[in-house]
Amino acid sequence: MAPALVTLTTDFGTRDPYVAAMRGVLLRGCPGVAVVDLTHEIAPQNLVEAALFLDAALPEFPAGAVHVAVVDPGVGTARRPLAARAGGHTLVFPDNGLCSLFFRRTPPEAVHVIERCPLFTERRGATFHGRDVFAPAAAWLALGNPLESLGPPAEERPLRLYLPEPAKDASGRMSGEVLHVDRFGNAVTNLPGGEQVRGTVVVELPGDPVRIPVRRTYGDADPGGLVAVTGSTGRLEVALRDGSAAHLLGLGAGAKVSFVPERE
Amino acid sequence: MAPALVTLTTDFGTRDPYVAAMRGVLLRGCPGVAVVDLTHEIAPQNLVEAALFLDAALPEFPAGAVHVAVVDPGVGTARRPLAARAGGHTLVFPDNGLCSLFFRRTPPEAVHVIERCPLFTERRGATFHGRDVFAPAAAWLALGNPLESLGPPAEERPLRLYLPEPAKDASGRMSGEVLHVDRFGNAVTNLPGGEQVRGTVVVELPGDPVRIPVRRTYGDADPGGLVAVTGSTGRLEVALRDGSAAHLLGLGAGAKVSFVPERE
Amino acid sequence: MAPALVTLTTDFGTRDPYVAAMRGVLLRGCPGVAVVDLTHEIAPQNLVEAALFLDAALPEFPAGAVHVAVVDPGVGTARRPLAARAGGHTLVFPDNGLCSLFFRRTPPEAVHVIERCPLFTERRGATFHGRDVFAPAAAWLALGNPLESLGPPAEERPLRLYLPEPAKDASGRMSGEVLHVDRFGNAVTNLPGGEQVRGTVVVELPGDPVRIPVRRTYGDADPGGLVAVTGSTGRLEVALRDGSAAHLLGLGAGAKVSFVPERE
Repeated sequence: MAPALVTLTTDFGTRDPYVAAMRGVLLRGCPGVAVVDLTHEIAPQNLVEAALFLDAALPEFPAGAVHVAVVDPGVGTARRPLAARAGGHTLVFPDNGLCSLFFRRTPPEAVHVIERCPLFTERRGATFHGRDVFAPAAAWLALGNPLESLGPPAEERPLRLYLPEPAKDASGRMSGEVLHVDRFGNAVTNLPGGEQVRGTVVVELPGDPVRIPVRRTYGDADPGGLVAVTGSTGRLEVALRDGSAAHLLGLGAGAKVSFVPERE
Repeated sequence: MAPALVTLTTDFGTRDPYVAAMRGVLLRGCPGVAVVDLTHEIAPQNLVEAALFLDAALPEFPAGAVHVAVVDPGVGTARRPLAARAGGHTLVFPDNGLCSLFFRRTPPEAVHVIERCPLFTERRGATFHGRDVFAPAAAWLALGNPLESLGPPAEERPLRLYLPEPAKDASGRMSGEVLHVDRFGNAVTNLPGGEQVRGTVVVELPGDPVRIPVRRTYGDADPGGLVAVTGSTGRLEVALRDGSAAHLLGLGAGAKVSFVPERE
Repeated sequence: MAPALVTLTTDFGTRDPYVAAMRGVLLRGCPGVAVVDLTHEIAPQNLVEAALFLDAALPEFPAGAVHVAVVDPGVGTARRPLAARAGGHTLVFPDNGLCSLFFRRTPPEAVHVIERCPLFTERRGATFHGRDVFAPAAAWLALGNPLESLGPPAEERPLRLYLPEPAKDASGRMSGEVLHVDRFGNAVTNLPGGEQVRGTVVVELPGDPVRIPVRRTYGDADPGGLVAVTGSTGRLEVALRDGSAAHLLGLGAGAKVSFVPERE
């Protein structure tokens, strides 16, 4: 049988001992657990980036995995620590919207407030809930214990994050924005992509809009040319062949873009 | 039964093939071993940062784990490669003080010099002891072999690292310094924290000391406000809510701070 | 029995969800597989850096491992996705030279084009072959299936990468260049090292060549001094004790160096 699987998604980086401490707590609480790092490089306290990340990554995992997500500007305040079950996955997270994009796709069947856990230790402090609350709760769930053993059902549903939605006008033109720039300098937008999408992405640079054709893949651009493609999460993204589109065009999260469909 | 567990702590980064080579040697020497990265992002050759890291992370791990630590400015010189057992943990490291903060808390029960190992290969070179000495020795120990199979007991105890200690004056004021700045810009000091600690941390900026109240958690600060809290390793740290205290105040390792207790 | 082993080498970084998605696909396709990150920090689309990395890391791994390498400027174009067996290792990669330095040392016994895989899903897109082609193929092979189940033998051998070779003149002097600068600022050259090598490395700075003695190890330099040593891959590298040689001398990939043997 495959060992229990726990994934970690945080903004802790790996230079500090925070992630290592969580891994130790998981391995101590659930011996033999396979701990899988999804990322620790979420920009500090950036909930939108974390929510987009989780929405793209979690659906790939096999049922039965326990996913721990800790990006937590409100650590030590009244925000609730939650444990949820959704579509065969178990999630452990602070109630700040972190998992809300994933939940939009896969609504949770059960959500409980984490109030107690046999693996909690007395040092449960106010500053490091990753180590002292979320990791022990995840180890406990990875051992096969039910959500209800951690606390009562949540009376209010998990917080939802606002994510800008593109607006469509009468002509079919959609106005949207850049959500995220990836490591390659590709600017991921909130404009929906797909195999059937034909048209042009317009980057609204002041006084000088740039029109970029939608193609199937990066390689369909000329060397050094701009291209818009459907990225790995189904959204349109603006790319530069052999370079960084974000750098060339000065794009960051929030930059205005729109999509103009091809006339038939 | 859980598989054997080996952790890695280095200053190698992951861009170069050094860590990958160590993982290969571990998996070849001890098939099925679970190799857990603690960090590879210790600042190059920074022994103090590494010692603080190990002191915070290792106690979280289950007994039986083998911990490999390689930050090794003296690779290829006469410094001894050591293997030690302490509080149920096994440690493999160059003798340069790397593990001395952990040992202060958990004194080693046995320390041996690594002189031979059936997993050593003939290429044992002078520049990459992580791959050629420490990883094979750790794989060998993870297989269940005893320390003494690697070499004789160390005649001299492992080197200790000097770490600045805070000084207390007659009024109860403690003078200390910043040990480390973490990813969030929190400045971790050598001033002891704890649940009972009440008072003020003073950051000794030239001509203009900044007084910061000690609170329970980051969230107890106003948005944009400074706060001192007891961090995850029990030391006081200076934080800025929703920002970087180190950046705002220009703090780095060695910056002078002090703690003034509350008058009852 | 040890679990199946799959390693990952990419230029994806870990900030974006690309690697996490690949790990999910691997764990879903081959439950219990041990997924080992070699690196995700290859400079974006840098095939030479990736090829050097793989050549240094892969030989350390036990036979039976499946190695996935994805640095893929041509994703979505006509370049072939390949699966190969070489010296007990299985490799899955785009046909762009990525594995050619490893193959120079360990010629492949069989190379197949990846055309079909029971683990492929219908979403197989044009932009993310790491998730949609290479990870499912690797999971399939890690389950113990043969190369030929993925597609026909490759009619043309895998592409080879040009790597500059040092030139030797009549006096025995070798002219070479810097291939790579590592995290410590050591400049790895294409000049062959080894235990028997005695002489001097000359860094060809304009108008002012710097002569650096070849020694056994970094520690043989004076503090703050330059030294050339045989690095972990058997090539000569220029190092600065307690500092960055690359920074001091302004060295990067392509910088001219030469080796002058000691006269007997």
